[in-house]
Amino acid sequence: MVTVWQERKKRLVQYMNENGIEASLITSPMNVYYFTGFYTDPHERFMALYVEADGGTETLFVPLLELQAAEENGHVRETAAVSDVDDPYALLRSRIGRPAKTVGIEKNAVSVRQGELLAETFDGCLFADLEPFVLSLRMNKSEEEIGKVQHAVHIVERVIEYAAQTAVAGMTEAELTAELEFQMRKLGADRPAFESIVLTGPRTALPHGKPGGAAIREGDFVLIDIGVQAGGYCSDITRTFLMGEGTQAQVRLYETVLAANEAGIRAAKAGAMLADVDKAARDVIEQAGYGPLFTHRVGHGFGMEVHEQPSVSGQNRRIIEPGLLFTIEPGIYDPVLGGVRIEDDVYIQQDGSARVLTSYPKQLIRLGRK
Amino acid sequence: MVTVWQERKKRLVQYMNENGIEASLITSPMNVYYFTGFYTDPHERFMALYVEADGGTETLFVPLLELQAAEENGHVRETAAVSDVDDPYALLRSRIGRPAKTVGIEKNAVSVRQGELLAETFDGCLFADLEPFVLSLRMNKSEEEIGKVQHAVHIVERVIEYAAQTAVAGMTEAELTAELEFQMRKLGADRPAFESIVLTGPRTALPHGKPGGAAIREGDFVLIDIGVQAGGYCSDITRTFLMGEGTQAQVRLYETVLAANEAGIRAAKAGAMLADVDKAARDVIEQAGYGPLFTHRVGHGFGMEVHEQPSVSGQNRRIIEPGLLFTIEPGIYDPVLGGVRIEDDVYIQQDGSARVLTSYPKQLIRLGRK
Repeated sequence: MVTVWQERKKRLVQYMNENGIEASLITSPMNVYYFTGFYTDPHERFMALYVEADGGTETLFVPLLELQAAEENGHVRETAAVSDVDDPYALLRSRIGRPAKTVGIEKNAVSVRQGELLAETFDGCLFADLEPFVLSLRMNKSEEEIGKVQHAVHIVERVIEYAAQTAVAGMTEAELTAELEFQMRKLGADRPAFESIVLTGPRTALPHGKPGGAAIREGDFVLIDIGVQAGGYCSDITRTFLMGEGTQAQVRLYETVLAANEAGIRAAKAGAMLADVDKAARDVIEQAGYGPLFTHRVGHGFGMEVHEQPSVSGQNRRIIEPGLLFTIEPGIYDPVLGGVRIEDDVYIQQDGSARVLTSYPKQLIRLGRK
Repeated sequence: MVTVWQERKKRLVQYMNENGIEASLITSPMNVYYFTGFYTDPHERFMALYVEADGGTETLFVPLLELQAAEENGHVRETAAVSDVDDPYALLRSRIGRPAKTVGIEKNAVSVRQGELLAETFDGCLFADLEPFVLSLRMNKSEEEIGKVQHAVHIVERVIEYAAQTAVAGMTEAELTAELEFQMRKLGADRPAFESIVLTGPRTALPHGKPGGAAIREGDFVLIDIGVQAGGYCSDITRTFLMGEGTQAQVRLYETVLAANEAGIRAAKAGAMLADVDKAARDVIEQAGYGPLFTHRVGHGFGMEVHEQPSVSGQNRRIIEPGLLFTIEPGIYDPVLGGVRIEDDVYIQQDGSARVLTSYPKQLIRLGRK
C-alpha cells in the first residue's frame, strides 16, 4: 500500500522531473512533516529532507537529539543525524549522489545565509522555488486531513463554550486567557495554534491585540479569537460576546458583522472567486456604513499552520476549488463601541459546496446571565 | 536623556558608517523589538525597521493591523503601515532617501525570496550581514536586562516548586504540563519561553522529548525543563526529580550530573573560554563512565530568545566576558535508568564572576512524600 507520505514525495519527485530540478531540500518544519510525518522545531539547528530527482536518494537530516524520534516517526528512506559539532553542509555534501545545477528550495523558508552555504555545497547552483508547488499541494486538503481539523475545531469550541460559562465581570483578559489555554491542554490540544486573543472593552477594537490586565466590565464586548493545534492540524475561531446588556449601537454593530459573516459563507463555493467571498462580506459592512472600520481581508487559508494559502482578500481572483480550507472572519472595529469579529472555518467539499466546520452559535450571546 | 532605544540605534548607525553600509533593514521581530521597543510577530506580513547610514531616515514598517500598537510602543522616528493590499517593497522604495549599493540585512532572518525582492527594490545591491553585529550587541546584557531575566526566573522557579508539590504517581506528562503552563500564566508570564519538556520514566532519556500520555510511576525520574517569557525576556531551567525511592544506580547518575553542573558553574568566569565550561562538566561525566550518554553541548546563551549566542560547546574557544548570559545544563541519558539534566542560568558580572540566577534547590528531591 502506498502511504500518504510516499504519495506526497512521489508528487514532489514528479514535479522536480518536470521542472528540471535535480535535487531538492525541504527545510521548513511543517513541510518536512508534510512529506515525512516527522515534526520537530529544530530551532537554529539544521534539518532538511534531501531528495534527488531520480527518486533514489531520500535522506532526512535531523539534529542528533531528534534522531530517535525521527527514526520512530519519520516515513523516509534514510535518516541522518547532525550533531552540534558537525558541519551540516559537509554532511549533506557527502550524501549527494549526483551533481545538481538546479536545486529546489523553499525560497521563503531558506535564509540568505543558508542559500549562500547551499550554493557552495552544490559548487554553485541555481535555486528554483519549490514553495508555490508545495503550498499548492498542501492547499488541497483531503477528507482525512479535514477529519483532523474537525477534531481541532471540536476542542476549541468546547473551550469557547467554557469561556461563555465562566467569564464574569472583573476577570482580566490575561486571567481568562490562562483559563482557556488550560482547558485547551486538558481537552487534548497539543498547544494553542497561535497567540490567543482575548480582549475586552475598547481593546476589542485592536484586531491583533494581546491579552493584558484589562478587566471585563458591564457593557463590554468580549472578543475571543483562539485556536488549537491537535494531531498536527489547527483550528481558528472567533466569537464576540457582550457582558450584560450593552447598547443598541453595539447590537447593531454585532448584527452587521454576523450578516457579513453569513454573506461571506454563502459566497464560498467552487467556481466563485476568493475575492467574491471578501466582497460579499465587505458589501454588507459598507452598506451599513461601517466600511472604513473593517480593516483587514476577510479570511485566510489554514491547515497544519494557522496561516496558509489561499488568502481570502479582495485582490485574490483565484477560483475556489474543492479541497480549500479557509476562515471567514469579517470584523468591525469601532474605537468607542469596541470591536466585533465572527470567524468560522469553511471547507470546500468535492461537490463544490462549503462545509462549515465551526458550529458554535453565532447569535449574540450575553454573558453573566447564569 | 538618551533612551536605550536611541542608544542601540545610534550604535547600529555607527556600525553602518564604519562598514560602508548605506542602508539597513532589520526584519527579525526580536531585533525590531531590541531597537524600537515594539514587539509583534507579523507572521507572513512585512515588518522592517529601515535605517539609513546618515542617521536621518528611520522608519518602522508594520502591518496596518499593528499600526496603533507600534505608534504607542515603538521608539522610532517614523512609523509606516503596510496594508494587506500594499506592495511593501513599493512602499519601501518610496521612502528610500538615498541610493544604497550595500544594504545591511540579517542574513539568517531574511529569506532567499525576500532577498531577491530587496535586491530589486535597491536596483541591485550587495548584502552585508548585520546579524553578527546585532547578536554581539544583544549578547552583552545590561543589569537592567538581567533584572528582567531574573523576574522570568522567579516565575519559573515558582512553577517548578508547584510541580514538586503537586506531581503524583499516575499523573501523565501532558496533565502535569497543562498544570505548569497554567501556573506560568497565573504568575504573570506572557507565555512559555519554549515547548515545555515534562517527561517521566525511560522517556526522560529523550533530551528534547515532548510531553505525552505517559503516566508517572513509582521509581521514575521526572524531568522538567521549562521557561517563561515575561516582560520580553526568558528564563530556562531544568530540574529532575525522583518519584519515590528509586535505585542506587539512579542516585549515582543524578549525583554525577549535579557534580557536572557545579563544575561547569565553577568554570564560568571572565577570562576562561566557553569551551572550558563544557569541558569542566563533561570531564566529570566522562570520569564517572557516562561520557557517551551526554550527547549535547553544555549550554547556550539566551535573553529575549531562549536560544541566543554564545554557544557553550567544546568547540567555542571564545573568551568569556562580562555581560554574557547562558545556561549550564549537563545531562546523562540512559535508555534504561532514564535521563537526568540539571540546568541553571548564569550571568557573567562586570567583575568577571558568575552570578547564578536560578536558585531552586539542586539536591535530589523525591516526590510523593507529603
